[in-house]
Amino acid sequence: MKFLHTADWHIGKKLHGFDLMEEQADAYQQILTIAKDQAVDAIVIAGDLYDRALPSEANVAELNRMLVDLNLHHQLPLLAISGNHDSATRLHVGSEWYANTQYYLNTELAGAFTPVELEDTQFFLLPYFEPWQARNYFGDDQIRTVEQAMRLIVKKQVAAFDTSKKHVLVAHFFAAGSSQTDSETRVIVGGLNAVPLDILAPFDYVALGHLHNHHALNQPKIRYSGSPVKFSLSEAGEQKGVWLVDTDKSEPIYIPIKPFREVVTLTDSFAHLTDDTYYNTLDRDAYYGITLTDRAIIPDVMNQLRAVYPHIVSLERLNGHEDLPTVVTIDPELDPLTLFEHFFEQVNDTKLNEQQLTWAKASLSAAQDGEE
Amino acid sequence: MKFLHTADWHIGKKLHGFDLMEEQADAYQQILTIAKDQAVDAIVIAGDLYDRALPSEANVAELNRMLVDLNLHHQLPLLAISGNHDSATRLHVGSEWYANTQYYLNTELAGAFTPVELEDTQFFLLPYFEPWQARNYFGDDQIRTVEQAMRLIVKKQVAAFDTSKKHVLVAHFFAAGSSQTDSETRVIVGGLNAVPLDILAPFDYVALGHLHNHHALNQPKIRYSGSPVKFSLSEAGEQKGVWLVDTDKSEPIYIPIKPFREVVTLTDSFAHLTDDTYYNTLDRDAYYGITLTDRAIIPDVMNQLRAVYPHIVSLERLNGHEDLPTVVTIDPELDPLTLFEHFFEQVNDTKLNEQQLTWAKASLSAAQDGEE
Repeated sequence: MKFLHTADWHIGKKLHGFDLMEEQADAYQQILTIAKDQAVDAIVIAGDLYDRALPSEANVAELNRMLVDLNLHHQLPLLAISGNHDSATRLHVGSEWYANTQYYLNTELAGAFTPVELEDTQFFLLPYFEPWQARNYFGDDQIRTVEQAMRLIVKKQVAAFDTSKKHVLVAHFFAAGSSQTDSETRVIVGGLNAVPLDILAPFDYVALGHLHNHHALNQPKIRYSGSPVKFSLSEAGEQKGVWLVDTDKSEPIYIPIKPFREVVTLTDSFAHLTDDTYYNTLDRDAYYGITLTDRAIIPDVMNQLRAVYPHIVSLERLNGHEDLPTVVTIDPELDPLTLFEHFFEQVNDTKLNEQQLTWAKASLSAAQDGEE
Repeated sequence: MKFLHTADWHIGKKLHGFDLMEEQADAYQQILTIAKDQAVDAIVIAGDLYDRALPSEANVAELNRMLVDLNLHHQLPLLAISGNHDSATRLHVGSEWYANTQYYLNTELAGAFTPVELEDTQFFLLPYFEPWQARNYFGDDQIRTVEQAMRLIVKKQVAAFDTSKKHVLVAHFFAAGSSQTDSETRVIVGGLNAVPLDILAPFDYVALGHLHNHHALNQPKIRYSGSPVKFSLSEAGEQKGVWLVDTDKSEPIYIPIKPFREVVTLTDSFAHLTDDTYYNTLDRDAYYGITLTDRAIIPDVMNQLRAVYPHIVSLERLNGHEDLPTVVTIDPELDPLTLFEHFFEQVNDTKLNEQQLTWAKASLSAAQDGEE
């Protein structure tokens, strides 16, 4: 069978305060188009449908619209789980009805052992869980890590295998050897909560959610789909998309999703950034993370830049206060002016110019007059 | 056809801080039993399923459990609307799937004009709405009141009547001539937002939600079901229940719901309330609203009473500060002790006794020593 593997929709996510509803609606439309063009038999959504446990009314309405469209209007079977960002309890509401039209949504560990069978494939839907939930479920208080839990979970799933079928695991966790980006919440820290890949060997394909870059793990049969939208500046250069999985073929195909607005990082001088011969070559409608190389004070800098780049999500200085030398040596024997000259040079890698020296002398003189 | 008419479940409601989950679960079980015993064809829930727009995870799980049980386990058709306490947007999620198993949930004004047809009856599901929603829907900025809106709404519903069938309106508003209790939110104040009964004449039955007493309106064909549980002390003496409506009969029958815990108000002396020959005649597990007739200070009074009545939801004094005379006459020429004696007598309707007089003299003497 053929299915799309997507995850981490994070409906409601903002990029440095900028609402991403348009981006998410556009990415959804592309996923639908890919599903129809490829005539897939199902769509897998591997967790983090919402960005937060308590989504806004607008987000709730938006996700419902997408799922109604996929499942009821386009009759596409859906296989979905809750991720660490979802409230399993809230997302669960209605799922008993959804299954009647082949929208299989599992939010409970107990539901991970009864596969959904579609054509030649058994799908095991394992939601995000924490070790205490596995302790309760298995009645085993020795379970302290996700790794320990996963050994028991997969063993129990394998016991439910129909050997005449293919086996797909849909899950939401951190797989050992993966690399992370800035927009994922590190809920569980520490190597013991990474899932070693050998545990996942019984499956023909493992459709993962949690990490937002589809290159986070490079395994032919175990994949993160990544998010359909860029959620942080660190994802500026990434290609987003979905996996097209064919259970009769050895490797899935990655189908790109075009960004509604690009995410671009620029490190440049204010003069160059505001030069129209330069900025007219750029896609100015993108989200920009700008790092200025200037040292001088630039009055009203954000408004001047926003006049050129309306969606600036971050503005920093390359030589801002973050770049102060970690150790500034101060000789308390020196007179105030010399002390200031040394400090300025250490912080800025340059000496005071004539004008700056004149200002410094005047200020120190005024301060001394004040003391007397 | 035969259906039950209930409303105002208010899942998540508290009674003076006491959680009512057990009461609500028990009332639900009785509603299910009545529905099965009476072999009804459907259950109508006329709004305010939740107590608040943003219900807790526990409340969300609990309402879902009840609706799954009614509709999927017991195959009972449901006809429901959102009330003023529900978030129409949040409650709406999943409703597109629910209709596949005859759970008809309407949360939008636009959905009120396409009847649900079950057997011999057309049900019009009109959710709680505010005048601005009717202004937008009808494109008529003259609509300022619920009454004006209802005239247009009913006219449009009547245009969809199949005259060979019965017509039932399910709605959530304040009908003119109704009486209110303490546990309803008065969202819209003022007579212009009460719906005159003549507007509702075209319907064979109007199943209302909003008011919590089923006697709030005494009309054969227009009824409030009231809430299934007592939500305030002012409902202590009420009988809760559901209406059994048979479209072939002229009047519905009220079927009582037995309270899981009663709500009782007592006005009595502390001595009598804590006398075991008295309190052993009472149902001490009830929720109590107690008004003490005592005037004397009673140390640790709440804990002493809770030892007898564990679920005290309210404790007041009959002669508390609320009963101070509105005018206390003070003659500034009098000496402090006489002034105090007059004040005490006016407030308490009795003179200082010997002990009180001794205390008053000692206090005044100590205060005077302090001044000198």
